[in-house]
Amino acid sequence: MKALRYHGKEDVRIEDIEEPRVSSGTVRIKPAFTGICGSDLHLFYDGPMEGIQGVSAPHPISGETLPVVFGHEFSGTVEEIGEGVEGLSLGDRVVVEPFMVCEECAMCTSGRYNLCPKMGFIGISGRGGGLAEYIVVEERWVHPVGDMPLDQAALIEPLAVATQGVELSGAKEGDVAIVGGAGPIGLLTAAVLKAYGATVVITELSAARKDKARETGVADYVVDPREQDPVELARELTDGVGANVAFECTSVPAVFDQLLSALRPGGLLQVVALHPSGVSIDLGQVVMTEKIVQGTIGYANVHEKAIELVNSGRLDLSPFISGKIPVERIVEDGYTVLRERPEEAVKILVTV
Amino acid sequence: MKALRYHGKEDVRIEDIEEPRVSSGTVRIKPAFTGICGSDLHLFYDGPMEGIQGVSAPHPISGETLPVVFGHEFSGTVEEIGEGVEGLSLGDRVVVEPFMVCEECAMCTSGRYNLCPKMGFIGISGRGGGLAEYIVVEERWVHPVGDMPLDQAALIEPLAVATQGVELSGAKEGDVAIVGGAGPIGLLTAAVLKAYGATVVITELSAARKDKARETGVADYVVDPREQDPVELARELTDGVGANVAFECTSVPAVFDQLLSALRPGGLLQVVALHPSGVSIDLGQVVMTEKIVQGTIGYANVHEKAIELVNSGRLDLSPFISGKIPVERIVEDGYTVLRERPEEAVKILVTV
Repeated sequence: MKALRYHGKEDVRIEDIEEPRVSSGTVRIKPAFTGICGSDLHLFYDGPMEGIQGVSAPHPISGETLPVVFGHEFSGTVEEIGEGVEGLSLGDRVVVEPFMVCEECAMCTSGRYNLCPKMGFIGISGRGGGLAEYIVVEERWVHPVGDMPLDQAALIEPLAVATQGVELSGAKEGDVAIVGGAGPIGLLTAAVLKAYGATVVITELSAARKDKARETGVADYVVDPREQDPVELARELTDGVGANVAFECTSVPAVFDQLLSALRPGGLLQVVALHPSGVSIDLGQVVMTEKIVQGTIGYANVHEKAIELVNSGRLDLSPFISGKIPVERIVEDGYTVLRERPEEAVKILVTV
Repeated sequence: MKALRYHGKEDVRIEDIEEPRVSSGTVRIKPAFTGICGSDLHLFYDGPMEGIQGVSAPHPISGETLPVVFGHEFSGTVEEIGEGVEGLSLGDRVVVEPFMVCEECAMCTSGRYNLCPKMGFIGISGRGGGLAEYIVVEERWVHPVGDMPLDQAALIEPLAVATQGVELSGAKEGDVAIVGGAGPIGLLTAAVLKAYGATVVITELSAARKDKARETGVADYVVDPREQDPVELARELTDGVGANVAFECTSVPAVFDQLLSALRPGGLLQVVALHPSGVSIDLGQVVMTEKIVQGTIGYANVHEKAIELVNSGRLDLSPFISGKIPVERIVEDGYTVLRERPEEAVKILVTV
């Protein structure tokens, strides 16, 4: 079958590989749409990640080394069902939670499988990916999406990232929430907060991203911090007390500081973006006002919630789809666009 | 009446001041024992704190300027009861939760009165203090302690600080908890964790404080990080996964880093000690392993829990009493000892 495989830095190839076969407890899915993720870009331009990928040694769970089929944000249709699979039917529209975990460690057995030390990703670490004619996946990781359009369904994976952050934060209806950054995850985080009934402020410098935040309707206030102080706005919206929660989706330390200051005493700053190890924070403020800084990575047990947000009509994913391209154009019309003009696109979907 | 008043830097005076009078909703207490707190030392040696004390302008709640009666960690006996007071009787042994708050802000009305922006302390900001023959306090802040010995009762205030930190952390029976630092708050935090049924590791460099941690029996493991790696010990105790919670009670950034690393993914680091504003932390680790860094300051609604820990026999405060001195010796046998040989004493109690 046709598949896009990642061989290494700036090296993806459309190849003819063997079709995967259904075994007990698995289903065969025909992928429909696959989103391009920031981590795909990172791998393509910066090269493989030892540990998450089998580079010098096989990945501890997949047992595979490079090359691997690419694509972990995908939707598709169930085309074949293995023995013992009970919750899925032929023709089901589905998305895949693209994990591979050890199932044995304290994190896996306590339900926080996103924190499994051996964790890998379908579409990055092996076991196929969305950029192929077929993929075989264990039932556990396959989530039916009902009648959801398959292009929108390809965004359930990044929506799950956003949903995880909001769920961990405890944000709720009536809260005032500030989101730093209107990139794909910032926008989706804002969308989840809005669907949960929060008043949402989004801060962003880029004109194109400010426009996206306005067009998608995810925020009640779109603020350029050079023009309006988000800390003051947060206070104005809360009788002077500050935001309940904030979400750092930029990786910029100055934004981290601003969001921390915009919180009320006891407020929570959810760090969604990746950060390097040495970031200087106002720990004095954290202590004196009992603030909380929490990290979030991936997702665990939130796909059903993310799917329900869309299927109930509370969250519309269609404004986040920036374009659809064939896999043959993935470098030129996908990676290159996202790297050179990242403000212009939210999610580019790829078809095989 | 006789009272010790704080006039400013290195200036406390025993003076004859007017006796406070009971009014509606208040009781008159005869203080028995008053502990010396780190903040008393800080004020004595470094001078007044504008904002918490009325220095150039009256304190916003007490309306007072310096001098103020000193002493906010105290026990005593109810000697007179004002009109409308219903929950207290003559002769009751009590402790005072030494707050003054606005009662109006979002923090006060949501029960987190320790975060009131105008908050002040009895014994620091005005309204009398424990180092006087009498004090009049609103019923709301007075907590009966049953038959608890009055010397131990003077330690309920710092025990409430420790209880607040443990309560906010969510630590529970069976958890493995690491406490950085065996100063007074570190020891009391360890004692609360032990009473809650956690396995407690305490890390400390000072020989005298290591001895204190051993003598008081608050920890299952007393570790000198130069001799034994607490990160490794935490893993050994948890099948390799790491501690559930950690408590930073030293203000030393290197300890912060070590405690963060000793946590399991998803673990919580409670910062109890004060820290300056610019502390470099491994935010990358916080994100990649969904760790939580939380601050704690003071206490709110935990005095009853702290009292119950002692009265139920689950926590013994007597090992933390290092000595009793008359107020006339507070500088020589109190402040000087705690400043010059801080490892030798946990709590020094003062009588008027």
